[in-house]
Amino acid sequence: MTTTSTDAATEGHEAVALLERTRTTVHPELRTTVESLPDSLRRVAMYHFGWEHADGTPASGRAGKAIRPALVLAAARSLGGDPHHAVRAAVAVELAHNFTLLHDDVIDEDPTRRHRATAWTVFGTPDAIIAGDAMMALALRLLAEDRHPASAAASARLAACVIELCAGQQADCAFEQRDPHEVSLDECVAMATAKTGALLGTSCALGALYAGAGEEQVAALDAFGREAGLAFQLIDDLIGIWGDPDRTGKPAGADLAAHKKSLPVVAALASGTPAAEELAELYRGPMDAGAVARAAAAVERAGGRDWAQFQAAERMSRAVHELSRAVPDLSAADELLALAEFVTRRTR
Amino acid sequence: MTTTSTDAATEGHEAVALLERTRTTVHPELRTTVESLPDSLRRVAMYHFGWEHADGTPASGRAGKAIRPALVLAAARSLGGDPHHAVRAAVAVELAHNFTLLHDDVIDEDPTRRHRATAWTVFGTPDAIIAGDAMMALALRLLAEDRHPASAAASARLAACVIELCAGQQADCAFEQRDPHEVSLDECVAMATAKTGALLGTSCALGALYAGAGEEQVAALDAFGREAGLAFQLIDDLIGIWGDPDRTGKPAGADLAAHKKSLPVVAALASGTPAAEELAELYRGPMDAGAVARAAAAVERAGGRDWAQFQAAERMSRAVHELSRAVPDLSAADELLALAEFVTRRTR
Repeated sequence: MTTTSTDAATEGHEAVALLERTRTTVHPELRTTVESLPDSLRRVAMYHFGWEHADGTPASGRAGKAIRPALVLAAARSLGGDPHHAVRAAVAVELAHNFTLLHDDVIDEDPTRRHRATAWTVFGTPDAIIAGDAMMALALRLLAEDRHPASAAASARLAACVIELCAGQQADCAFEQRDPHEVSLDECVAMATAKTGALLGTSCALGALYAGAGEEQVAALDAFGREAGLAFQLIDDLIGIWGDPDRTGKPAGADLAAHKKSLPVVAALASGTPAAEELAELYRGPMDAGAVARAAAAVERAGGRDWAQFQAAERMSRAVHELSRAVPDLSAADELLALAEFVTRRTR
Repeated sequence: MTTTSTDAATEGHEAVALLERTRTTVHPELRTTVESLPDSLRRVAMYHFGWEHADGTPASGRAGKAIRPALVLAAARSLGGDPHHAVRAAVAVELAHNFTLLHDDVIDEDPTRRHRATAWTVFGTPDAIIAGDAMMALALRLLAEDRHPASAAASARLAACVIELCAGQQADCAFEQRDPHEVSLDECVAMATAKTGALLGTSCALGALYAGAGEEQVAALDAFGREAGLAFQLIDDLIGIWGDPDRTGKPAGADLAAHKKSLPVVAALASGTPAAEELAELYRGPMDAGAVARAAAAVERAGGRDWAQFQAAERMSRAVHELSRAVPDLSAADELLALAEFVTRRTR
């Protein structure tokens, strides 16, 4: 694990440069694929990716950080495959990811995404649902039409992942409607694994498949992505409570103000401590700034912060272990390690 | 075309028996596949198919007529394939069809489907959207995982069809918001082809692929299904205006009362006749029984009824022509012909 302990700033730079290279490679193909959609659906998709304004004029927005496509290409390279042969798989996971964003925004009634009005607020709920549907079909079509020998296995794997993403999103919605005490920590971890870990794992698995890897290597890379994904979610949840507003662009304790049942919160609620009782009581009422501060302190006293930090480290350790099973010489997996470090250290 | 002119009652019976046999063959596999969904999504899907009540107790409802699965199996048989090898493809098209029903009901805010409350009214809009997403992914996964040599081509074709279905549904929504005069007849025919013809054509194409057919035969069977699908839509639209309430279970002129821009209505509006003007004026106001009767008369005087009847016959003729290209000895295609006759003569 010594490879993960190199200078943090350098590694951050490595991942940033890698993501930039990935966007240069993948985004033109992603855009061409999106442009192949029928007119009316293409309009919504082009807006969603930031390539067009609502009126259809060109926009220079970024189509996302491309973490999932970068994982596909890096996984392929780590197993000796040519990343250029896996570009279609990279496009497919990015389309699948953006299908979930389009539908999640409708379901959660989120007004903004990537600092812009969400597609459903601009084009209406029906068009956002339909464009999301088409984007998912496009992802699976792209793989099914690919002549790469791994394309059928990749297509089946991505379709299975979409079902898992759906289960995760459904669980997330259901949790928000339940009393804080009713949600167990196991359920919450399973939900985060399905909602966040599954697609990161599948991205790595697709890269492995496109490098011609065998079942065991594919499974190990999938597990690497899943564990890293869960670490990412834990860090994200910590930032949602204790993140620096100057770096996150959100007020301190934003997730608490929104009554979010994030992982540190559920861990705190499940602790059986007096602080858990206090937190549950606070979550039943409105959350002004004072309540948010008291809730953050209660999560900490109940052990939710420590648990999440320990879990994040534990998951990263498991991720590296899984990776070492698939790629015994970890120096070949430097890109995957850099990406895993990057996603678990981001400030949103 | 003499094969299509046999006694109507007999042919209707043949199709009814064929659909019954299809359900016996396909529904157990369809149900097993749906039962493989994660718990929360399965609940919504089992309810939608009529296999469970809202509380999860068993229900004996019918999971639909199975016209699309019947087309898959009949198409495979017409080209000498073993229909039993195409059961997965039949399940896949039925899943894809039901994905569209789940989402269309959300989008159109329809309260009932198959004489039951729609899934979104029972489980909420988020769960209905998510269950629809999962159902589409399940359809494409089923084909991608199938070891049949045609499965990749079938998967790609079904994914492309889903995109076309999305474009059709989007156009349908957009038309409803436009002034009657702004929707051209060509646009309306294209919409109906995408929304109804595409999946019937794809069902036949998948049957052909699973029978090991070449590209030309697959294309001809796809065209057969599309043309028959458009004929079906035209007849359906005629029934929506002049159908016998005792047989349709809907009040006379239901589509007119709902201001639907169905094919005969758009044809009438595009006729440039005084009756077209009268119809457009009626469509701008509320529709009481008197207005519905006057609108029906105006569609007829403007030539919308004759046009739709002629077009339906013309499309059926083209369908049979396409079929004869793929299956020169039409006696081998008796099931496909019976199904085409059935769907264009149904009373809902």
